[in-house]
Amino acid sequence: MPQQTTARRIVLAAHPSGEPVDTDFRIETHELPEPAAGQMLLRTIYLSLDPYMRGRMNATRSYAPSVPLGGTMVGEVVAQVAASQLDGFKPGDFVLAHSGWTTHALSDGTGVHHVDPALSPIETRLGVLGMPGFTAYAGLREIGRPQPGETVVVAAASGPVGSLVGQLARAGGARVVGIAGGAEKCAYVRDELGFDAVIDHRAPGLVQALADACPDGVDVYFENVGGAVWQAVFPLLNTFARVPVCGLIADYNGTTSSPGELTVPALMRAVLSKRLTLRGFINYDLEQYREDFLNDVAPAVRDGSIRYAQDIVDGLENAPRAFMGMLKGRNFGKLLVRVAEPA
Amino acid sequence: MPQQTTARRIVLAAHPSGEPVDTDFRIETHELPEPAAGQMLLRTIYLSLDPYMRGRMNATRSYAPSVPLGGTMVGEVVAQVAASQLDGFKPGDFVLAHSGWTTHALSDGTGVHHVDPALSPIETRLGVLGMPGFTAYAGLREIGRPQPGETVVVAAASGPVGSLVGQLARAGGARVVGIAGGAEKCAYVRDELGFDAVIDHRAPGLVQALADACPDGVDVYFENVGGAVWQAVFPLLNTFARVPVCGLIADYNGTTSSPGELTVPALMRAVLSKRLTLRGFINYDLEQYREDFLNDVAPAVRDGSIRYAQDIVDGLENAPRAFMGMLKGRNFGKLLVRVAEPA
Repeated sequence: MPQQTTARRIVLAAHPSGEPVDTDFRIETHELPEPAAGQMLLRTIYLSLDPYMRGRMNATRSYAPSVPLGGTMVGEVVAQVAASQLDGFKPGDFVLAHSGWTTHALSDGTGVHHVDPALSPIETRLGVLGMPGFTAYAGLREIGRPQPGETVVVAAASGPVGSLVGQLARAGGARVVGIAGGAEKCAYVRDELGFDAVIDHRAPGLVQALADACPDGVDVYFENVGGAVWQAVFPLLNTFARVPVCGLIADYNGTTSSPGELTVPALMRAVLSKRLTLRGFINYDLEQYREDFLNDVAPAVRDGSIRYAQDIVDGLENAPRAFMGMLKGRNFGKLLVRVAEPA
Repeated sequence: MPQQTTARRIVLAAHPSGEPVDTDFRIETHELPEPAAGQMLLRTIYLSLDPYMRGRMNATRSYAPSVPLGGTMVGEVVAQVAASQLDGFKPGDFVLAHSGWTTHALSDGTGVHHVDPALSPIETRLGVLGMPGFTAYAGLREIGRPQPGETVVVAAASGPVGSLVGQLARAGGARVVGIAGGAEKCAYVRDELGFDAVIDHRAPGLVQALADACPDGVDVYFENVGGAVWQAVFPLLNTFARVPVCGLIADYNGTTSSPGELTVPALMRAVLSKRLTLRGFINYDLEQYREDFLNDVAPAVRDGSIRYAQDIVDGLENAPRAFMGMLKGRNFGKLLVRVAEPA
């Protein structure tokens, strides 16, 4: 096998205005770097594509710094160590790293963690057993706290966060209503994931369908989409309802609100009169649950009692298109780019 | 002294449209009732006037039922037992009761508690040591949780909730910024209550003045007013800021939002990116803190280390005007109606 001598990466070419387009990304080729003492070379196997990345493409900082123009797009990967001059990492090791949209990266080991391929398929550490799964688990533990018999609603229900929110809440005795886009995703959520009810947000009559599916109101709304779904769920919230807010994908492209929609004074009146809790969180705010998460969820993933879907795209060059499609809900399950085969 | 034979009460004559007006209230006279076995007759000494009453005047239910047309306006009072056929209550006893805007009321003792006039002046049990004080205390303990060095902002800072929020937070080591209406109230908040800074919301430039007064941003905003103050504070909220929401007096009369104001999508984006907590509460949701409240605050009220202001109006017939003035911020301190002198 000829030795590979070049690496490729995808950089931010322009800050998107609204929805990202092809020309906001650029693929670049550079010479494969060699690790110096105290470094290792990582070879990306799977790149995770996640909605939060849209925020990093803006010129203005969100909760984390923006990607600079010409900078490598950020992202978490499962990589394999290709060469190492770093204690504790040897060629062939699988690791989790934040090296971004790139085929290769040098690392001094900061923020890099070993992945045990015997625990579960390596790519699950980017999905059901990774950041999205942990977001579901920690947001329910810390904020949602569903009680047996309560109603939990989650959107993007076939996605990596929503699917675990629903399955965990249902395992805890709650009634779970999912929202997903299209008949295929809805069938999966109902039949494979076992949600009590599912609503197709692409069908007409979302507001009425949701009200019908939640005859006792909503006690926990796990907010990961924003937009029209939030507007539909909001009037159904019960007294003392909890709303963990981990994502707002529908709003990421900067859509403005339309007349007649929920206003801030109306929202605040409901927060008061229904004693609602709205709380934003990012998974890494809640590291105290990390160990419990793997202990609780990994066995259930292994024995099949927790299900998950993955949508795997081949080739780093296809990452921008896959990412743009995800923002429109075109993926089905956790979106991953297979950048290379494991050695 | 001739025996009193009539009682008076103020009833809801009409549901207000926007700001209440005189004709929304009606005073009625009726024969003084006599207690049957298992009852007592209460003679109101002080009636508490509070912003939440505006919500009860609406035809639509808020977190508590509306006052029916022709029904006595709701409210908490300190009363004195005038006659009793009820064990445990004897003529002359002071009690707290929810008998409303009335000179006299029959009671079977439900929800009635003794008031010890040796503990503090009886009317303080409607203010600094009553519902408003407890709202401040419990909201800080459960939701606000200010840490030493953090910045706490509270509006209606000379009022019974805001003044205690600020004094308690400052005693705990936080930096406290108050907002009040007019020079007299501002001087009181700064000089008598000892807030670190105070802003007059009636002066121009609220947004800039608030930003100048909070150079390190805002960690706790104790929301008891809503409206323009909320809009001014919102952009200053720090990551992980907490917003206990106990009142929205500026919005109670149904003012709608103006163009250019904060939108729900923008609010939700900030909830996520700053990991804000917005949580509504009503004082009686947090009864677990009731005993601590009296144990912690009553001694400080007695020794003068916690200050409070009262605005006392004489005569039940003046309650509607006083209440309407309160909704416009015309009171200075806890608004009370002295309905009668203690016997």
